[in-house]
Amino acid sequence: MEKRARVLIDCEDAKGLVYQISKVFYDRGLNIDNNREFVDKEYKRFFMRTVVSGHFDVEELHDELASVVPADARIRVIEPSDKKIILLATKESHALGDILVRHADGELDATIECVIANHNTLETLVKRFDIPFFYISAEGLSREEHESKVMACIDQFKFDYMVLAKYMRILTPAFVEAYEKKIVNIHHSFLPAFIGANPYKQAYERGVKIIGATAHFVTNDLDEGPIIAQDVIPVNHRFEWKDMQKAGRDVEKIVLSRALALVLHDRVFVNGNKTVIF
Amino acid sequence: MEKRARVLIDCEDAKGLVYQISKVFYDRGLNIDNNREFVDKEYKRFFMRTVVSGHFDVEELHDELASVVPADARIRVIEPSDKKIILLATKESHALGDILVRHADGELDATIECVIANHNTLETLVKRFDIPFFYISAEGLSREEHESKVMACIDQFKFDYMVLAKYMRILTPAFVEAYEKKIVNIHHSFLPAFIGANPYKQAYERGVKIIGATAHFVTNDLDEGPIIAQDVIPVNHRFEWKDMQKAGRDVEKIVLSRALALVLHDRVFVNGNKTVIF
Amino acid sequence: MEKRARVLIDCEDAKGLVYQISKVFYDRGLNIDNNREFVDKEYKRFFMRTVVSGHFDVEELHDELASVVPADARIRVIEPSDKKIILLATKESHALGDILVRHADGELDATIECVIANHNTLETLVKRFDIPFFYISAEGLSREEHESKVMACIDQFKFDYMVLAKYMRILTPAFVEAYEKKIVNIHHSFLPAFIGANPYKQAYERGVKIIGATAHFVTNDLDEGPIIAQDVIPVNHRFEWKDMQKAGRDVEKIVLSRALALVLHDRVFVNGNKTVIF
Amino acid sequence: MEKRARVLIDCEDAKGLVYQISKVFYDRGLNIDNNREFVDKEYKRFFMRTVVSGHFDVEELHDELASVVPADARIRVIEPSDKKIILLATKESHALGDILVRHADGELDATIECVIANHNTLETLVKRFDIPFFYISAEGLSREEHESKVMACIDQFKFDYMVLAKYMRILTPAFVEAYEKKIVNIHHSFLPAFIGANPYKQAYERGVKIIGATAHFVTNDLDEGPIIAQDVIPVNHRFEWKDMQKAGRDVEKIVLSRALALVLHDRVFVNGNKTVIF
Repeated sequence: MEKRARVLIDCEDAKGLVYQISKVFYDRGLNIDNNREFVDKEYKRFFMRTVVSGHFDVEELHDELASVVPADARIRVIEPSDKKIILLATKESHALGDILVRHADGELDATIECVIANHNTLETLVKRFDIPFFYISAEGLSREEHESKVMACIDQFKFDYMVLAKYMRILTPAFVEAYEKKIVNIHHSFLPAFIGANPYKQAYERGVKIIGATAHFVTNDLDEGPIIAQDVIPVNHRFEWKDMQKAGRDVEKIVLSRALALVLHDRVFVNGNKTVIF
Repeated sequence: MEKRARVLIDCEDAKGLVYQISKVFYDRGLNIDNNREFVDKEYKRFFMRTVVSGHFDVEELHDELASVVPADARIRVIEPSDKKIILLATKESHALGDILVRHADGELDATIECVIANHNTLETLVKRFDIPFFYISAEGLSREEHESKVMACIDQFKFDYMVLAKYMRILTPAFVEAYEKKIVNIHHSFLPAFIGANPYKQAYERGVKIIGATAHFVTNDLDEGPIIAQDVIPVNHRFEWKDMQKAGRDVEKIVLSRALALVLHDRVFVNGNKTVIF
Repeated sequence: MEKRARVLIDCEDAKGLVYQISKVFYDRGLNIDNNREFVDKEYKRFFMRTVVSGHFDVEELHDELASVVPADARIRVIEPSDKKIILLATKESHALGDILVRHADGELDATIECVIANHNTLETLVKRFDIPFFYISAEGLSREEHESKVMACIDQFKFDYMVLAKYMRILTPAFVEAYEKKIVNIHHSFLPAFIGANPYKQAYERGVKIIGATAHFVTNDLDEGPIIAQDVIPVNHRFEWKDMQKAGRDVEKIVLSRALALVLHDRVFVNGNKTVIF
Repeated sequence: MEKRARVLIDCEDAKGLVYQISKVFYDRGLNIDNNREFVDKEYKRFFMRTVVSGHFDVEELHDELASVVPADARIRVIEPSDKKIILLATKESHALGDILVRHADGELDATIECVIANHNTLETLVKRFDIPFFYISAEGLSREEHESKVMACIDQFKFDYMVLAKYMRILTPAFVEAYEKKIVNIHHSFLPAFIGANPYKQAYERGVKIIGATAHFVTNDLDEGPIIAQDVIPVNHRFEWKDMQKAGRDVEKIVLSRALALVLHDRVFVNGNKTVIF
């Protein structure tokens, strides 16, 4: 039976890679439905995402590709199917609600395994959608104690990505390392402007004419991980910081959902502290 | 001596095209510096733009590529060099001035052969830049008579593209056909909204909250040619139509210059009445 | 007890209006918390929206204002409070879901009285939020028959605005007149481009590089009512029309929610076939 | 003879200001052609810009207004006329060229008194427009020595604003203080992101998906002065930093010209380290 796969390859750049890889597809009689490449000239690194269809065995295809590309190559042959995600949130409903509505609509191409929150504010909303909700208060706990409870909860589930839908807590290095390149966060500013707490208040005080939001992978450098998507809206002197916050929520949720779609469709390569997005 | 070329191929889609084409490059030992492809699934049409470097003869490379792609293929092997352009204008200086400044700066990657205008308003500006200026008044002439004078002027020059930098006259089919796919126009609305005369007045009367500009190839359907670039800016009830016109000029000139750069860098394929842009 | 009101005045322009109106506020010892005016010079029409606080009787203030402005003036003194809205939808969940989440969050400054749909697709979603849902199929009914059923349902409720959250049916003049200036619609294009059915398909076929959405009051001219808000996003040749539709949904829902907030906060004046928005 | 003036008032907020000020206009029989107010609630500061027309003496009007507003008020009654500006630049032509073309077109509402540059690269361009050009090299000079030469040149001219059209030198506090609130700069990032040198390289290294430009008044805190205008454009992984720089030039020049128009039309109030723009 014919099937389809997303083939993602990244490796050090070398002459003839497009030829060698497309030869593998050609020799096996596979169709290329979509193909994009990019060479990062600074790091001399090659990226390729090809959607192929035809008759193939995933492992065989993987191994054959491995035989024609440099040894350092990371090769993924992915048959499209719903991925699994876990959501972390705090009190705000806009980013979470946007994802829940898409999920309910079948538009997300992912299954939400659960929502974990450090407040119980969002419980009603999440339960409306029949999604498991875990309230793990941080009150009276050290950061490490709270995280170990969260991790115990998380580790009940298998998941591809963890989405911080306005999860207003700083993560420890241990937590971040445990889920490397799997955590997608939305930050409520156009990074690197206004790193840290209350970016809308910072923006208001600086008197900027544009505010924005940034979706990024989480690394151990606060608000410094690889950026996936950003967008902005205009503001003016009539906006107090609460108005900026309110207007900003629309950007936050759209940017997060856009980044999530890119990630779930296997369109994002991490390239050092940057991303390549096809 | 090593050289570089942009290879542009468009043809009916077929299995193995990427493989066949990249094999040609590989067998000749050429480097691929940049490569982008696209398949229009509706029209089953394949587009590829590859920047290659190495040792090759342009005609030989062309012929070898021709031997591996479908017979209907249009293949161009272009060694980057300044292209030649002709500018047509009427009275407004913003779009023309933007191109003149870029040209003077060496940023345009093209040589301006001349400016032709149906008014003499812009003569002083053009002469400041030591560019030949031809004033061909349309007064008392039929459209055909005026155009035949303009064409006589144009035909003294060799050029790759003719740029209508706010040339406020409708062209006859004969004129358009004489320079097919070579005429780039800037229209002062986000087409297809506000086709025809005075789009800002139309926009004002409709009460839109966004105005824009569209750069497109000229065809015989007024304001209906393949779109190359578009952009918009917000407006509000405080804008009278003259304010929209004034604000719109910035969008017009940037969109035209952006489209011109795309065209001059051989990044634009015409695909029916649409464009593919790499 | 001190209270607050939004005072909205529109009338033919006359000398001294700002003075006369601000004198009323001053003489009564009211604070002006916010004030915006606009004069439409073409129509010689004056618009003013002032937020005042202090001690006043709504009717007295109204009458006193009426005594100092031209006889044609429309004066509204509105004490802020939740307005009531009714939603009409068809099958798509994005615009409706966005409003439901805001409502559940208490962010909407309005109460949703009910959702009426001509398909039952959205029933589950609406019921998740404990909002009354009425499924009124149009199958086998003339437009008039269906509308009379819808109107019978609507007329059970008191409401300030009716929101068409992707209600994919054309309304009759009788329906529109029954709820004049009360119906807010979201159209899935940057009007006036792509009026009518399937604007994304039209946009795809035209090959535009930007798509958008328009929220407007409904009048009897299809897609021609006063525009409240518009926004756009870039697209390119890789977008098939279904991709445009998918990407466009985010713009649609944000533009509709933005327009709804403007309307609910009494920031929108209808000025002929245009709007003045403070 | 009837004339027109822009009246700008900023003062501590107080009850009845709109009434008191509009009463002055009313009692003198002046028309209000345009009026905008704003109250900064944090700083309790009132801003008003009114365009009036009729018969009046500028000084008398000023004094009468002064008699009805708080003692700290700054009142300006400005009869519109071309302002005078001085341009400082280094080597890049885009921002300077944009202003020169607008000036030549009569669109600027200002007279360019001269251009001063620390390199002679731009001499040809400036002379094309018959504007005095002063080349004051900084080579071998301390910052103070160079600035004293520049100031000697500047001080030959009367001017309203000094525009740094990509003047790539840091100014000393003495220089900035000498021309307080008169210096408008364009910074090539969306401040406060990427303060300091080579923001495009910083943006490239951070992997942002949006770049921008910021026009601001210059103060002694580098890149920290009150922001007048900002705008952004999308970028992606295909952009090397030189590509960002090239694309960014269009934003820089448009943002600078937009800010300059606001300033020249007396639409900008400085409010602490922020601006109020009408």
